[in-house]
Amino acid sequence: MGYTIHKHHHHFTWDNAREPVHEIDPGEKLLFEVMDSSAGQLSYQSTEDDVRSVDFARVNPVNGPIYVKGAAPGDTLEVEILGFGPQSWGWTAVIPGFGLLADEYPDPYLKTWDLSGGRAQFADGIEVPIAPFPGTIGTAPPEPGSHSIVPPGKHGGNMDIRHLTRGTKLYLPVWNEGALFSVGDTHAAQGDGEVCGTAIEAPMDIELKFHLHKGKQIAEPQFETPGPLFHGQEDKGWFVTTGYGKDPVEAMKSAVRYMIDHLSTTYGLKPVEAYALTSVAVDLKLSEVVDMPHYLVTAYLPKSIMT
Amino acid sequence: MGYTIHKHHHHFTWDNAREPVHEIDPGEKLLFEVMDSSAGQLSYQSTEDDVRSVDFARVNPVNGPIYVKGAAPGDTLEVEILGFGPQSWGWTAVIPGFGLLADEYPDPYLKTWDLSGGRAQFADGIEVPIAPFPGTIGTAPPEPGSHSIVPPGKHGGNMDIRHLTRGTKLYLPVWNEGALFSVGDTHAAQGDGEVCGTAIEAPMDIELKFHLHKGKQIAEPQFETPGPLFHGQEDKGWFVTTGYGKDPVEAMKSAVRYMIDHLSTTYGLKPVEAYALTSVAVDLKLSEVVDMPHYLVTAYLPKSIMT
Repeated sequence: MGYTIHKHHHHFTWDNAREPVHEIDPGEKLLFEVMDSSAGQLSYQSTEDDVRSVDFARVNPVNGPIYVKGAAPGDTLEVEILGFGPQSWGWTAVIPGFGLLADEYPDPYLKTWDLSGGRAQFADGIEVPIAPFPGTIGTAPPEPGSHSIVPPGKHGGNMDIRHLTRGTKLYLPVWNEGALFSVGDTHAAQGDGEVCGTAIEAPMDIELKFHLHKGKQIAEPQFETPGPLFHGQEDKGWFVTTGYGKDPVEAMKSAVRYMIDHLSTTYGLKPVEAYALTSVAVDLKLSEVVDMPHYLVTAYLPKSIMT
Repeated sequence: MGYTIHKHHHHFTWDNAREPVHEIDPGEKLLFEVMDSSAGQLSYQSTEDDVRSVDFARVNPVNGPIYVKGAAPGDTLEVEILGFGPQSWGWTAVIPGFGLLADEYPDPYLKTWDLSGGRAQFADGIEVPIAPFPGTIGTAPPEPGSHSIVPPGKHGGNMDIRHLTRGTKLYLPVWNEGALFSVGDTHAAQGDGEVCGTAIEAPMDIELKFHLHKGKQIAEPQFETPGPLFHGQEDKGWFVTTGYGKDPVEAMKSAVRYMIDHLSTTYGLKPVEAYALTSVAVDLKLSEVVDMPHYLVTAYLPKSIMT
């Protein structure tokens, strides 16, 4: 076990002038004690009213920055995801003004999850498989100044890629001396798209190992998984909705609305609950991006979540 | 084995006034003898010059229409995909003016595939797993008149959903008396997105079984798969590129360009070859659609295609 980057070593914006909290050589491992993405503003006992009072200037903390010796612009930092500590609890919220269907779901919603048994039960008979990953992981961007942590960019950041699970090797462009790596926003589970804007947001430890590829230049992050993307959760097959549109965003929205309809009608969920469940368990794919003027987006629900 | 809808029973546009070629009762099976999407204009011996002379008024033929007795607007037609006949050959083309990166690849490209051994070899050491499905499958749209077969719509059509493989149940809205079902454009393999605009376009038989759900109304097609989406092809893991953008189309283009760079650099392919390989073997996912102003699209290459 390497050195630990404790949770108080976090920051809320990307800034390449930020002082590193720790320095490592390539080849070293680090353990990061990651807070939840509300930075402790929400707890297992929180209610929907608490969602309203969250200070959005203090969300999505990331631990770091870590200075990697020898890293310089034009190199690639390889981050090997060694594993995750246990998760005790998590939350999923619909936050007013945020999410793919923000206009249709203006009110706050909050679901808190007891993850202590290694299971994520959404409701009676509905269980989401736990598959932890860091939602936000990246190097400092090249542009000076303070940048919002919300959008991802060519430095990585809040990419919310659900397949950055254990054993994955993530390649990040280095834009500054020392790379200035940070990680946070751990999720216990999420579907591709994260449509309501939140996953199962859960504090947990994450262990990473760092390697440096000198002179290997990439324009945006890339990664490799060690094997299949799913483990067991596909055995019952998938239920899929489709949405077409001249604008891919309209196509996404349609596919998600149909999935919400399906989940509400078939399993008796309220629409906002179905929206949140879609965010944590349903995958959006771009099935077709060439048959103009229409794009086709598909939303894949693993039927195994219905137990 | 049911009745066969032979290949001469095809049409090139959607039109709800078109005379049905056959009538069935719900519960019946049919075999469709599907032509390739060039309607025989290309062959295994074709060259890039032949791509230039394809008549695009005569592409993407679909067999039908089939009149399903008792089907009426407001019903859902279930199409069970029972299986596919053998494939002997196929083609993949970059067609000027068509495809996600049409501006960057203005010249025609053609790859023909010998599929007779049950394998799809792209080049020495690169083999694409065969996973056949119908690219175009749907009912006649409600609007009268003749409609291009290129864009998908609320009747289905040219959806190019790669997971409509054997055992899948596709649910199509019925917009006209008799449903007026047609199918064509069979693909031996394709990645999610079909980025260059063509898959492994291959003539083959497809056997379908039809069921009618009276009074079950859906707005756009839906489907269910019987099990996992992949079979064996994931064992070596995935190599993934990411692209961000304020516009999801820009994000898609970036992810695809990086995948082309990766395939060209790592495996010595020409860029246009890498573009075509991406179209038949790489999956586009919407990893994140909420962290505004940026969308994040990912392109997943199954490493097992490198043998």
